[in-house]
Amino acid sequence: MRETGREVNELRPIHIETDFTKHAEGSVLITVGETKVICNASIEDRVPPFLRGSGKGWITAEYAMLPRATETRNIRESSKGKVSGRTMEIQRLIGRSLRAVVDLDVIGERTIWIDCDVIQADGGTRTASITGAFVAAALALGKLHREKRIKKFPVKDYLAAISVGVLPNGTAVLDLEYTEDSIAHVDMNVVMTGNGEFVELQGTGEEATFSGNQLMEMLVLAEEGIREIFSIQKLAIAEYDKYITEKNEEHE
Amino acid sequence: MRETGREVNELRPIHIETDFTKHAEGSVLITVGETKVICNASIEDRVPPFLRGSGKGWITAEYAMLPRATETRNIRESSKGKVSGRTMEIQRLIGRSLRAVVDLDVIGERTIWIDCDVIQADGGTRTASITGAFVAAALALGKLHREKRIKKFPVKDYLAAISVGVLPNGTAVLDLEYTEDSIAHVDMNVVMTGNGEFVELQGTGEEATFSGNQLMEMLVLAEEGIREIFSIQKLAIAEYDKYITEKNEEHE
Amino acid sequence: MRETGREVNELRPIHIETDFTKHAEGSVLITVGETKVICNASIEDRVPPFLRGSGKGWITAEYAMLPRATETRNIRESSKGKVSGRTMEIQRLIGRSLRAVVDLDVIGERTIWIDCDVIQADGGTRTASITGAFVAAALALGKLHREKRIKKFPVKDYLAAISVGVLPNGTAVLDLEYTEDSIAHVDMNVVMTGNGEFVELQGTGEEATFSGNQLMEMLVLAEEGIREIFSIQKLAIAEYDKYITEKNEEHE
Amino acid sequence: MRETGREVNELRPIHIETDFTKHAEGSVLITVGETKVICNASIEDRVPPFLRGSGKGWITAEYAMLPRATETRNIRESSKGKVSGRTMEIQRLIGRSLRAVVDLDVIGERTIWIDCDVIQADGGTRTASITGAFVAAALALGKLHREKRIKKFPVKDYLAAISVGVLPNGTAVLDLEYTEDSIAHVDMNVVMTGNGEFVELQGTGEEATFSGNQLMEMLVLAEEGIREIFSIQKLAIAEYDKYITEKNEEHE
Amino acid sequence: MRETGREVNELRPIHIETDFTKHAEGSVLITVGETKVICNASIEDRVPPFLRGSGKGWITAEYAMLPRATETRNIRESSKGKVSGRTMEIQRLIGRSLRAVVDLDVIGERTIWIDCDVIQADGGTRTASITGAFVAAALALGKLHREKRIKKFPVKDYLAAISVGVLPNGTAVLDLEYTEDSIAHVDMNVVMTGNGEFVELQGTGEEATFSGNQLMEMLVLAEEGIREIFSIQKLAIAEYDKYITEKNEEHE
Amino acid sequence: MRETGREVNELRPIHIETDFTKHAEGSVLITVGETKVICNASIEDRVPPFLRGSGKGWITAEYAMLPRATETRNIRESSKGKVSGRTMEIQRLIGRSLRAVVDLDVIGERTIWIDCDVIQADGGTRTASITGAFVAAALALGKLHREKRIKKFPVKDYLAAISVGVLPNGTAVLDLEYTEDSIAHVDMNVVMTGNGEFVELQGTGEEATFSGNQLMEMLVLAEEGIREIFSIQKLAIAEYDKYITEKNEEHE
Repeated sequence: MRETGREVNELRPIHIETDFTKHAEGSVLITVGETKVICNASIEDRVPPFLRGSGKGWITAEYAMLPRATETRNIRESSKGKVSGRTMEIQRLIGRSLRAVVDLDVIGERTIWIDCDVIQADGGTRTASITGAFVAAALALGKLHREKRIKKFPVKDYLAAISVGVLPNGTAVLDLEYTEDSIAHVDMNVVMTGNGEFVELQGTGEEATFSGNQLMEMLVLAEEGIREIFSIQKLAIAEYDKYITEKNEEHE
Repeated sequence: MRETGREVNELRPIHIETDFTKHAEGSVLITVGETKVICNASIEDRVPPFLRGSGKGWITAEYAMLPRATETRNIRESSKGKVSGRTMEIQRLIGRSLRAVVDLDVIGERTIWIDCDVIQADGGTRTASITGAFVAAALALGKLHREKRIKKFPVKDYLAAISVGVLPNGTAVLDLEYTEDSIAHVDMNVVMTGNGEFVELQGTGEEATFSGNQLMEMLVLAEEGIREIFSIQKLAIAEYDKYITEKNEEHE
Repeated sequence: MRETGREVNELRPIHIETDFTKHAEGSVLITVGETKVICNASIEDRVPPFLRGSGKGWITAEYAMLPRATETRNIRESSKGKVSGRTMEIQRLIGRSLRAVVDLDVIGERTIWIDCDVIQADGGTRTASITGAFVAAALALGKLHREKRIKKFPVKDYLAAISVGVLPNGTAVLDLEYTEDSIAHVDMNVVMTGNGEFVELQGTGEEATFSGNQLMEMLVLAEEGIREIFSIQKLAIAEYDKYITEKNEEHE
Repeated sequence: MRETGREVNELRPIHIETDFTKHAEGSVLITVGETKVICNASIEDRVPPFLRGSGKGWITAEYAMLPRATETRNIRESSKGKVSGRTMEIQRLIGRSLRAVVDLDVIGERTIWIDCDVIQADGGTRTASITGAFVAAALALGKLHREKRIKKFPVKDYLAAISVGVLPNGTAVLDLEYTEDSIAHVDMNVVMTGNGEFVELQGTGEEATFSGNQLMEMLVLAEEGIREIFSIQKLAIAEYDKYITEKNEEHE
Repeated sequence: MRETGREVNELRPIHIETDFTKHAEGSVLITVGETKVICNASIEDRVPPFLRGSGKGWITAEYAMLPRATETRNIRESSKGKVSGRTMEIQRLIGRSLRAVVDLDVIGERTIWIDCDVIQADGGTRTASITGAFVAAALALGKLHREKRIKKFPVKDYLAAISVGVLPNGTAVLDLEYTEDSIAHVDMNVVMTGNGEFVELQGTGEEATFSGNQLMEMLVLAEEGIREIFSIQKLAIAEYDKYITEKNEEHE
Repeated sequence: MRETGREVNELRPIHIETDFTKHAEGSVLITVGETKVICNASIEDRVPPFLRGSGKGWITAEYAMLPRATETRNIRESSKGKVSGRTMEIQRLIGRSLRAVVDLDVIGERTIWIDCDVIQADGGTRTASITGAFVAAALALGKLHREKRIKKFPVKDYLAAISVGVLPNGTAVLDLEYTEDSIAHVDMNVVMTGNGEFVELQGTGEEATFSGNQLMEMLVLAEEGIREIFSIQKLAIAEYDKYITEKNEEHE
C-alpha cells in the first residue's frame, strides 16, 4: 500500500463528463482524482499549409493550465509572451497520440483542434489530457459523421494514457498523484491503443536511472491501468463504440 | 419583451459556486445565463516594485478565455505571444474596480492576484468577471483574516458589475447576452458599490452615438440589476457579510 | 477657483495648427495648455481582411508618446517590444470614436490611419488626441473629396473629447491638467458629437467611487467644454464646415 | 541488410574529436556518419535562482542547428524570435540526461552549460548531441578537477544515447540515418549509463503504433549499440576513465 | 548645379530651435531643409550594469520616426514589436559619436539618454540627429553644470555630422536630400569634431562601388559642410562655447 | 613589430576550405588566425515581396556566433528572442557587400541566402565572414551555372574585407586580432572589389577620434591586405576565375 492509501496497481477514480461546454463540437471534463482537465475539440474546415491539396486532415493540440491550477500560482504563458518547453512537449505528445488512431484521410481537409485546459492539477495532467482528448475528438468526429460531412467514423481504435513510476523505496506504482510524482525516481507516461499497442512511451529517470526489470514492471502496471480506462471511455462514447469495435474486428 | 424572452430589466439567472477549485485561496465559478467564468484569487506575499516598503498591498487581475469559450475557436493568446488590447482593457478594469472597495493598507505588503478565466462565453464576460472576482477576493481575504494574518477584514463594500445597452429599436435593456450584444448600438458597463456609488462607467456608442436620455435610462436599469446581484453575493459570502455591513454603517 | 488659477468650467487654451508636417494627407499639431500632440491622418488604399470585398472603409488609430513627453523619461514601447495596456486602450478609443462620425461606406475600401504622437504631456493627452485626430481625419478626407476620389464628404458631424473629474475637495472640474489629474478621485473622458450625443463615456473612480450627482455635474461641464472646442475645430476646417452643417440639417 | 548497406545492428562510424574549439572548457566535434555536432561545455560560477544557497550545481543544455545543416534551409530560430517545440524538447532531454550521471553536490554552485550545435544533419542529431555532450562535460569537469576547484571528479558513470526504430517492413534497426528516419513507423531514443541502466526512453509510433515485442527488440539493439559507443567515449576521455571506473566498482 | 538647385558644396538651410519641449533637460528641434528631428536629452542618475561602481557616466541614444514622417506611412516599430536593423545601426552610431566628445568621468554615474524622433524626413535624418543631439546633450550637461551637480562642463569639443554622396552622373555632392539619396551610387556619413578629426566614417556603395578619388572628393566636401554647421551650433549653445573653446586651446 | 609578433602590414594566416558541409550549394570554412567562420550559401527559388515579378534576384545574409565562440559564453540570440543591433549591422553589411559584385539580373528570381556562423572568434569575424561569404556565394552560383539554370556566371568581381585600426601608441595596423581590437582607438572595416574600388568603409573612433592622415595610412594597409586575400580566394574558386577575369577585362 502507498502513502496515498492506494494499491500499487490502483487508479484514482476517473470520471468523464461529456458536453461540458456548449460551443465546442466535442467537450469533455475529465477528472482523475483531484486532477481536472477541460478537453474541447473544435473542427476547422482547413488544414495547415503542408497538407493543402492533399485531401488529408490534421489533428493538433494545445495545452495550458489555469494559473492557479497548482498549489502556487504560475505566471500565465500569455503574459510571459511565450510557451514553455514543458507545454510544447505536452502539446506535441497529445497531437501525435491522437493522430495514431484517427484516419486522417477520412476527415478530409479539416483540422481537429484539441484544447486541453487544466483547471486543477494533482499529477498526471498530460495523461488525463490524452484520455479526455480522445473522447472529445471522438464526439466531434461523431458529430461530423452524424451530419454526413464525412463518410465513415474515422476513429480506428480507443486511445488512453496513464503514468507509472518508481517510488524512492523502489516500488513501481500506477497513476502517480502529485505527492508521489514529485518524489518519484522514475516517471513514465504510456499511451496505448485499444488493441494493446504502444503509441508513445516516455520514461525519464528524473536525474536518476532505472533498470530493465523496473521498466517491465511499469509496463505491466500501465497496460492494466489503461485497460480499465478504456471501459470508462466506452461508456462516455457508447454511441460510437460499435464503429470502433467493427474496425478492430476487421483488423483481426 | 426582448427576443430572448426577458423583460428589459430582467437579469439572466446568476449562480455563484464557491470553492470551485481547491488550490486558490478564493475560488468561484460564476454563471450568468450561459456565460461561465472561473474566478480564482491567489495571495502572494509581496508587492510590485512601486509599493515595496510602503506597507500597502495591491490587487491585480488577469483575464483570459479558453479558445473554445466562444462560438468559433479563438487563437490562444499564449500561442500568439501577446495579449490583445481587449484583454488588457478588461484586466485593468477588473483590478481597478476591486481596488476601490478593498482597504489596501490593511492587506499589508501582499498582492491579491485575480484570475478570471472564461470557460463559456455568451455576452457579459467582463461584468461577470468583476462580480465573481469580488466574491473570490472576499473569500481569499476572509481566509487571511481567519488565519489572523491581517487585523481586520479589508473589504469595505460590495462590488458588482452589469452591462446595459440600447438595442437597434431604441430600447434600453439590462444584461445583454451575445445575440443582443452583437447588434446593440450602445454598450455600457457599470461597476457599482453596495452603497450605490459608481466605480467605473464605460459606455460606447459602438460606432453610433447615444443621447443623455438614453444614458439616464441605462443607468437606472444598471443600478436596479446590480442591487439584485448584491443579494446573490451576500449569500455567497454570508460569513463575511457582517464585516462589510458594519463598515457601511460606520460610513453613515 | 482651482489651484491652477482656472475656473471649474474653464478650458485650457486650445490651438490647432493644420498642415503641421508635409507628407500626411491630414496633419495637425494640437496644443491644449502644455499638452501637445501631433495628429497625422494617412490614407491607405486597402482595408483589413474582415472588410475586403465589402465596399466599406475603416479608420484605425495608433497613439504613442515621445519618451520625454513626460516629466521623467518613459521607456520607448518599441524598445520594450510591446505596447502597454494603456496605449492599447487609447488607440481603440480614438479609432472607435472617429468611426462614429464618418460614413465608412462613402470612403470605399480605404483605411484612414490616425497617428497621435504626444510630444509634450500635461494631462488630457487622450482627449486632445481625439479632438486633433478629428481635424486631421477631416483634412485627409477633404483631400480625397477635392481630388474626386470619393463622391461626398464623408464626415457626418463634429467630434471632440474632454476630460472632467472630481478633485479631492469634491469639486467637479473641466479639463484636468497633470497636477490635477494625478490627485483626482474621479477621472472621466467624454467624447461627443456636434449634435450633443455621446460617443464614449469612460469614468473611473481611481480606486475611489463617485455618486450619481457627481456624474451629472461632470457631464454638464463636459458638454459645455466640448461645445467650445467645436468652435475651434470649425475654424480649423472652415473649408469643410458647410458639408457637415448640411448633414446635420438633413438629420433634423 | 538495410538499403543503407548496414546490418540491422550496425552503427554508423562514430568519431569524437576533442578540443575542437579553443575557448570552451570542454569542446568536442562528434561525427556519426554524416551527422556532425559541435558540443561545447562552459562553466559558469553561479547557478539558477532555485539553487542559490543550496551548495549544489546545475547542468543545462542548448541545442540548435545551423540553418543549412539540413537538406533545405531552415529559418534561424533567432530570426523567428522563438525556439521551436522540437528544440525545447531536445534541450530538456540533453540536460536531464547529463544530470543523471553527474554528482551536482560535488560541482558546487556552478552551472555547466552544454551547447550542441548541429553543423550537418543526417538523422540522430539528438542522440549524437547527448553522446558528444557527455564527453564535453567530462572534459570541462576534468579541467575543474585538475585545477583543484572541485574535490573529486564528479562524473559517476558513462552516458550515451542512440536511436532505434522499426522500418516500414517491420524490421527493427539501430541508429537510423535520415532516409530511414523519415519513413520509420517507430522512432525510439534510448539514453543509458555505463552500468546498463536507462536514463531516458522516448518511443514514438510516428502516427503509428508498436507492439510489446517490437519494443523488446529495439531495446536489445539499443543496448548493444550504446555499449559500442561507450568504448569510443572511453578513448576520448581516457584520462578520466579511472575515476569513472572506480565509482562503478564502489557501487558494486 | 544639382537638380535641387543647390551647388555641390551647398548645405540645405539648417535651423536649431532650443528648449523645444519643456520636460527634457536638453531639448532641440533641428531642421535641415525639410528634415525635422526632435532631439531630447534626459539625465538619469544611474548607469548600465557594466559601469556600476566605476564612477563613470554613459551616453546612449534612441532613434525613431513618426509613422508618417515619410512619404508613405511606415509601420510603427512598437506595433511590430521589434526595432529594425536600420534603427539599431543609427542608435548605436549616435551614442558612439557623442561619447567621443564628452568626458564620461566628469559626468559621474549618470546616463544621458538621447532621444531623436524624426517628425518629418527628407534625407539625412541620421546626420541631423547627431548634429541636434550634440546640442541637446550640451544643454542638458550645461544644466547639470549650472546646478553644480558636476564640477566642470564635460563637453570636450563640437560634434556634427553630414552626408556626402556620389550622384549617378559621378558628381560628389554635399548633404543629400531624399530625391538625391534615393538614386545616389555612394552614400557616406561623416561625423567630425571641432578640431577636424573624424569620429565615424560610414561609406556605402549602395550595391555599387567607389574609387579612392571619389572618397577624397567626398571627404573634402564633408569637412567644409561640417565647419559651417559648427558655427550654427555655436550660436545655439553660445552660453557654453567658452568652456569648449578653452578645452581646445588646452589641447594645443 | 606588434605585441602579436606580426608586422603592421602582416595578415594572419588565412585558409579557405571549400565544401565544408554537404547540403549547402556553397559551403566554406574560413580560418583567419584563430577566427573560424562557416559560410554557407543556399539558393531559394523565390525572392522577397518587393522583387516579385521584377525578374531580379536577391542576396541576403545572416550572421551568428556559437555561444562559446568567445572567451566567455554569450547568451544565444534565439533564447533571448531577439537579434542584437551588432548582429543586424553585420548581416546588413554582408548582404550589401555581396550585392555590389553580383549581377542580380542574371540570377533571376532567386534568393541567395548567406549564413555566416562563427564557431571560434578572435577578432575580425565580420570581415572574415564577407571574405568567406564571397567564396560560398561564388560556389553556389557556379553550381547554378554548371547546371545551366542561369545563362552566365553572375559574379562581376572579387570581393574581400579586412579590418585596420590604430593602436593606442598611434600605429596603424592591419588585421586586428582580439587582443588588439579590444584596445584599438580606431577600428575600420574595409570592403573592396578586385579592381580596387571600395564597397564599404566603416571607421569608428571607438569613443576616440582619428585624423585624415591616420585614415590614409589605414586605407593603404587595407588595400595591400585585401590584395593578398584575393589571391587566396582565386585558388579557392579557381574553376570560376576565368569568368571573373573576363568581366574585368571587358570593363577596361
